[in-house]
Amino acid sequence: MTATAPEPALPGQVTIREVCLRDGLQIEAPIPLSAKLELLDAVVATGVREIEATAFVSPTKVPALADAAQLAAELGRYPGITFSALVAGPGGARRAVTAGLGSIEYVVSAADSHSHANVGRSTDDSAALIEEIVGIAHAADVTVEVIVATAWDCPFDGPTAPDRVTAVVAAAVAAGADRIALADTIGTATPRRVTRLIERVRPLIDELPLGAHFHNTRGAGLACAYAAVGAGITRLDAAVGGLGGCPFAPGASGNIATEDLVYLLRDSDIATDVDLAAAIRAGRVAQQLIGRELPGALLRAGDRILG
Amino acid sequence: MTATAPEPALPGQVTIREVCLRDGLQIEAPIPLSAKLELLDAVVATGVREIEATAFVSPTKVPALADAAQLAAELGRYPGITFSALVAGPGGARRAVTAGLGSIEYVVSAADSHSHANVGRSTDDSAALIEEIVGIAHAADVTVEVIVATAWDCPFDGPTAPDRVTAVVAAAVAAGADRIALADTIGTATPRRVTRLIERVRPLIDELPLGAHFHNTRGAGLACAYAAVGAGITRLDAAVGGLGGCPFAPGASGNIATEDLVYLLRDSDIATDVDLAAAIRAGRVAQQLIGRELPGALLRAGDRILG
Repeated sequence: MTATAPEPALPGQVTIREVCLRDGLQIEAPIPLSAKLELLDAVVATGVREIEATAFVSPTKVPALADAAQLAAELGRYPGITFSALVAGPGGARRAVTAGLGSIEYVVSAADSHSHANVGRSTDDSAALIEEIVGIAHAADVTVEVIVATAWDCPFDGPTAPDRVTAVVAAAVAAGADRIALADTIGTATPRRVTRLIERVRPLIDELPLGAHFHNTRGAGLACAYAAVGAGITRLDAAVGGLGGCPFAPGASGNIATEDLVYLLRDSDIATDVDLAAAIRAGRVAQQLIGRELPGALLRAGDRILG
Repeated sequence: MTATAPEPALPGQVTIREVCLRDGLQIEAPIPLSAKLELLDAVVATGVREIEATAFVSPTKVPALADAAQLAAELGRYPGITFSALVAGPGGARRAVTAGLGSIEYVVSAADSHSHANVGRSTDDSAALIEEIVGIAHAADVTVEVIVATAWDCPFDGPTAPDRVTAVVAAAVAAGADRIALADTIGTATPRRVTRLIERVRPLIDELPLGAHFHNTRGAGLACAYAAVGAGITRLDAAVGGLGGCPFAPGASGNIATEDLVYLLRDSDIATDVDLAAAIRAGRVAQQLIGRELPGALLRAGDRILG
């Protein structure tokens, strides 16, 4: 046996942001607001403290989230939780702030082809808007996270040059963003690439919180999440049930499943706000509402027998 | 951001043993020998150099592998590949040796309850047979791997005490086993537990090759495999398509999928003998033969666009 490196230093606590209501639902057929509130009740019962509730984007492009303002109007019933919404530009940021969200996520795609396809702008043009969006948000005491999308790969062009990612991160830091996150938008990342990119990004962000967003599209979502935590990430997105896969590809994995992530972190002595049994129950609620089997592993296998 | 540990030292090469024909098929309804040979052709085309072909165990308990001797008689047509078979005792070891297998895997369950349920013997009684099995094998120039089953958890009793695992490993080393492997029999392991157990085991085995066997039952299979490689493992079992889940739980994950593992390792600069595209093709062959969707992620998602 060859010598190996010591066990990586892991944090004692990771913040999970539940994204089932936004990333989980966005490519599904629209479900009624009442169904979203049923899912939200189940998610709130997990103990999670941060929930991405919706997106203020084009209702034509994302009909499943066209009820963003109506949903936002219901959030006051859940005290103690920070609700956020994703936005694609200053217009969405204004709508989110008006709707009373406590935090917004502004997405900048590091890959130009994806950026054009997603929002009709180049990466540079999207990055140039960060300052305006931060201004809109901060004027209303709303925090801003810049999510660097396609941080590892673009669906059209393949690998994203790390310099493009660090350029967006540097722009976000300079513009006063409150948090940064790296998103594996198409689920192609693997742990070593995750570690390496985070090591490139970390020196740029000083004390800002750094998060990551993984999809389990190629089976490596949890491996990436664990590598990210080992590399210094303290925030992870996840969706109960692994909601967020393509509805037309049965069994295709979406976001990393909250319950599977919590299981892995708990058994690694990393605390979260999320109760595992409640997360499994919420995944079942999501499955029921969506009407098809979701990919979360613990939905089928359950917890292990604890010692 | 807090300081983190440096990137773990990873090996440049990992040996994958393809186990779809044994662990993948053992709980399926029996398929004809001709179908197994079709799958074997597809697996051989991946370039893999080690294949667990079958098991010499009770045909009543495992009817899917009752054709072990007939299958073994066909293996001469594939030169350059080491074929192995799993055995549960000296009788099976003799049959495997007689059938011409080049290597055998002898399973010792570290958890007593599982050991009794699986082979009707205690862990100690199973470990006491290692020497006899090594004798049978070595007399015929056949190598022996001792697989420590339920190395992390027992399906009946929960966590397996690491001392029970190290006791089996020490017995295997003392009895002259050629290789050791740790098996997460019920798919409950997570990466930090993997790292810790390997660190306990490594000092006991000197230069013997150490392998690991993971199931993706709770979504963490690849995360465990990557952690194992980071902790000094150089051999991993996998099954194309992720074959080996329960046929009666649709979507339930079985062994880690060969193609998903190869994808992760390739993108971590870790070489294997397995060609990724051929592994995806073999997973599709397995899916066709089994007649239901298999859980391997790359079967649906395919490779990423390479740079």
